[in-house]
Amino acid sequence: MTDQQPVTDRTRLRRKPDRGRHDRETIHAILDEGFVCHVGFAVEGRTWVVPMAYARVDDALYLHGAAANAALKHAAGALDVCVTVTLVDGVVLARSAFHHSINYRSVMAFGPAATVTDDEEKERALTAVVDHVVPGRTADTRPPTATEIKATRVLRLDLTEASAKVRTGPPVDEPEDLDLPVWGGHVPLFVRPGRPVPDDHVPPSVPLPAYAEDYRRPAGSSS
Amino acid sequence: MTDQQPVTDRTRLRRKPDRGRHDRETIHAILDEGFVCHVGFAVEGRTWVVPMAYARVDDALYLHGAAANAALKHAAGALDVCVTVTLVDGVVLARSAFHHSINYRSVMAFGPAATVTDDEEKERALTAVVDHVVPGRTADTRPPTATEIKATRVLRLDLTEASAKVRTGPPVDEPEDLDLPVWGGHVPLFVRPGRPVPDDHVPPSVPLPAYAEDYRRPAGSSS
Repeated sequence: MTDQQPVTDRTRLRRKPDRGRHDRETIHAILDEGFVCHVGFAVEGRTWVVPMAYARVDDALYLHGAAANAALKHAAGALDVCVTVTLVDGVVLARSAFHHSINYRSVMAFGPAATVTDDEEKERALTAVVDHVVPGRTADTRPPTATEIKATRVLRLDLTEASAKVRTGPPVDEPEDLDLPVWGGHVPLFVRPGRPVPDDHVPPSVPLPAYAEDYRRPAGSSS
Repeated sequence: MTDQQPVTDRTRLRRKPDRGRHDRETIHAILDEGFVCHVGFAVEGRTWVVPMAYARVDDALYLHGAAANAALKHAAGALDVCVTVTLVDGVVLARSAFHHSINYRSVMAFGPAATVTDDEEKERALTAVVDHVVPGRTADTRPPTATEIKATRVLRLDLTEASAKVRTGPPVDEPEDLDLPVWGGHVPLFVRPGRPVPDDHVPPSVPLPAYAEDYRRPAGSSS
């Protein structure tokens, strides 16, 4: 695979092509910063959009849910899914209502979602998802048992047809609006962690781990 | 409409029904706190999931984009769309990798998305979307012209088939894992504004408005 994703009919941007990105670096950075995707698929002609946790491993996305999850079962059966990850970076305040916008980075990835049946690949994927959501966490946790691995459904979507879209920066106002006595600019938004909340079963001898005390998203984070 | 949404085949929760909510208050609060939804629809048998800005007005969701936007055009043609809004409230750290989870509130709404053709309804919807993203903003901005209204596509999805799903609180560990020397609990996540960034055209006489200086999401926010 080259460093540019091939542009297909679905990943070519017809509007505002300057916002489009097809390089793997941008696509991977967005996928690595988010951890909840929206998975779209059709069941008997009707469309579903379901939020799921995920992790990227090389050029694959692993989606994760309980084996009993009806949505995941359908996604696995679907010929074709669309997985979208959107990071909202801010709100854009133009002088006109019309030119208001949102700063964001998003990725859309298309393809068949295949159920992972190999237990070793499943366990690697589950570890990847936990460590993607909380970097370093699985060094401390009890690994999944064979029963737990069976009870989990993992889907793999190979990133062969994906594109990114990015909007950044100030509003784009009509030239004649720039003299209006209206503030224009943008307000950045960040995802910030609050204080970790221990549950009722943490003994005094167990310290708060650094990944919870100073929770951060993986590299690529804008915050 | 009663205060409970009717439960249909699509909004009945088959797994973890305790996480399901069908009351309008919960559904509306989630929709009012978010401002980016993921809209799923099928084009020639293939599924798309597109992020869009929106606002709720009474029992309708207005989705908003440029008239030239191919995705919106397709959504309007679709018999059936699924709109999902997901608020990520935190990460849940269990003692086992298997029981890790995410705290979230989400809404899925199904139905036909109809293009709004009445110019007055369109203008009301556009105002609602801007004021939903930045509460109070349209009191200061130039209203849309007739040309701008024509250049904008507004879709309406009536909230007749919608449900919410909510996960909160601590991990649910296996009883035998509670004695492991592993920290368990959750880390709340919040969306926080950074300092507003004026663009290059704000004259010194124009002050930073309160809605930008102290940017807040509408009522219902957990932050």
